[in-house]
Amino acid sequence: MPDLSHQTTQVLDFLNCFQDELCGQVESLDGIAVFHEDCWDRPEGGGGRSRVITDGGLFEKAGINFSHVTGNQLPASATSHRSELASGSFVATGISLVFHPHNPYVPTTHMNVRYFEVQPQDGSRPVWWFGGGFDLTPYYPFLEDAVRWHQAAQQATGDHYPGFKKWCDDYFFLKHRNETRGVGGIFFDDFNTGGFEDCFRLIQSVAQAFYPAYADIVDRRRDMDFGDAQRRFQLMRRGRYVEFNLVYDRGTLFGLQSGGRTESILMSLPLLARWEYNWHPEPGSPEAELYDDFLRPRNWLSLAMEL
Amino acid sequence: MPDLSHQTTQVLDFLNCFQDELCGQVESLDGIAVFHEDCWDRPEGGGGRSRVITDGGLFEKAGINFSHVTGNQLPASATSHRSELASGSFVATGISLVFHPHNPYVPTTHMNVRYFEVQPQDGSRPVWWFGGGFDLTPYYPFLEDAVRWHQAAQQATGDHYPGFKKWCDDYFFLKHRNETRGVGGIFFDDFNTGGFEDCFRLIQSVAQAFYPAYADIVDRRRDMDFGDAQRRFQLMRRGRYVEFNLVYDRGTLFGLQSGGRTESILMSLPLLARWEYNWHPEPGSPEAELYDDFLRPRNWLSLAMEL
Repeated sequence: MPDLSHQTTQVLDFLNCFQDELCGQVESLDGIAVFHEDCWDRPEGGGGRSRVITDGGLFEKAGINFSHVTGNQLPASATSHRSELASGSFVATGISLVFHPHNPYVPTTHMNVRYFEVQPQDGSRPVWWFGGGFDLTPYYPFLEDAVRWHQAAQQATGDHYPGFKKWCDDYFFLKHRNETRGVGGIFFDDFNTGGFEDCFRLIQSVAQAFYPAYADIVDRRRDMDFGDAQRRFQLMRRGRYVEFNLVYDRGTLFGLQSGGRTESILMSLPLLARWEYNWHPEPGSPEAELYDDFLRPRNWLSLAMEL
Repeated sequence: MPDLSHQTTQVLDFLNCFQDELCGQVESLDGIAVFHEDCWDRPEGGGGRSRVITDGGLFEKAGINFSHVTGNQLPASATSHRSELASGSFVATGISLVFHPHNPYVPTTHMNVRYFEVQPQDGSRPVWWFGGGFDLTPYYPFLEDAVRWHQAAQQATGDHYPGFKKWCDDYFFLKHRNETRGVGGIFFDDFNTGGFEDCFRLIQSVAQAFYPAYADIVDRRRDMDFGDAQRRFQLMRRGRYVEFNLVYDRGTLFGLQSGGRTESILMSLPLLARWEYNWHPEPGSPEAELYDDFLRPRNWLSLAMEL
């Protein structure tokens, strides 16, 4: 692997600081938990720093992972749109997080920012791109939470919001269930429009927008009482989260294919998940409302006026 | 779809009777449970009959599914070795079962027999093959159970046993964990050696060998006391079962790709599964013995003398 490019160095510096800053915020939000850190090396090049909370005050399981992987051949999952790059040496780095709270009224969330740089074998100029986004997976339907989330997404991405919003709806979709993973947010990949500086600013804006929006939603929901029925529903919905991550998620696939650390990659899976055969919500229940009105693509911003 | 061939009719008759017979045996073994039946149609042709137990006396979740699917294009997962057949009309039929018991000392098991017949588009003779097998996923290490299981497998398959045993070890392997799903058994696919009558006899022999072997193991283990620690370990191992079925299993993929009924296909998932970040067994514990001595390919028959 050649020396790091100036661009890669800038991104790495940002990601390292961002992980520290966010972990501090999330520990405060949780109230009692402290992240446990594991650093790991990848034999073929690079490694990562995983930070995980187990059984906190707010979070049942939460992870914020940094990784920085280098090699001579990009895994297939990273080059499905860029087959000409399959044989170049590459750097892939990013932060990926998943939070699974105890309280079923508090949504699960996922955020990711990533940077790829590939040196094609023919000696032509390096190719780089960013990817990222954040999405929200509520267990119970609260319109104001979905609106708050998408307002943050719009503020962070501006003119890109409509396209990134649709991309998120399309990506976080379980075909075999005909339902979205949650209420979406933003997702993008192969992004290098407008040059490195503009793209890097956008990534920083996405990263910085995530926490305030999620913390607002947490504060609204964390003290709501719940019982066994809500917990049971939460665990069944977590089963769907497992289905998405193991069947469809390119990030999970990239990690497993590129020889990443399995425990870090599968940190995204919930502590517990439940599969009841052929379960359907009671018509008219909040659980049915989630399926009918929240697990399909909607223009959440236009629904703000209904609040 | 043309009329059913004589071969297909014979296989369907056998599978229908076998499902009824086995469901009766499994209800007796459970003691209190009764199978719930759902029949379903596939819009493109065929359908199935799913039978599921939830919260029985012995079984936390158990399903015995019959399906009979027809169409004009075999899904990719069925033709990875037979690309010349991708455009023929086909019949695929089989029984697939998974049993997840309550007691962590009783293993989970899976059995499948299946038959494919394809009419190539160029009008040449129909191509047919069988597939199937059974495998055992213990949570706690009992050598005599693994030996009993493989003795049944050997008796059912004779000279085919060594090859089918290896195929099973290779197939039920979680690469990202570097461990087998359990102690294996037998697995085979694309099987048409020796003509239809011989192959059909072998399939019947495999189907008939399954229940007596599993019932013996159940009877040895079902009354063993267990506590929270064993239950917790069982749920973590069930997480691995979910990982295998959603990431690697061709049968699951075939079902989802061919427009099968999602609830029937994912019946194989346990009621509950658990993912603790970076959990490892205590050295010297029964859980560590499972990992060290049971979750890797071994010649179980040669270990019979150690009993």
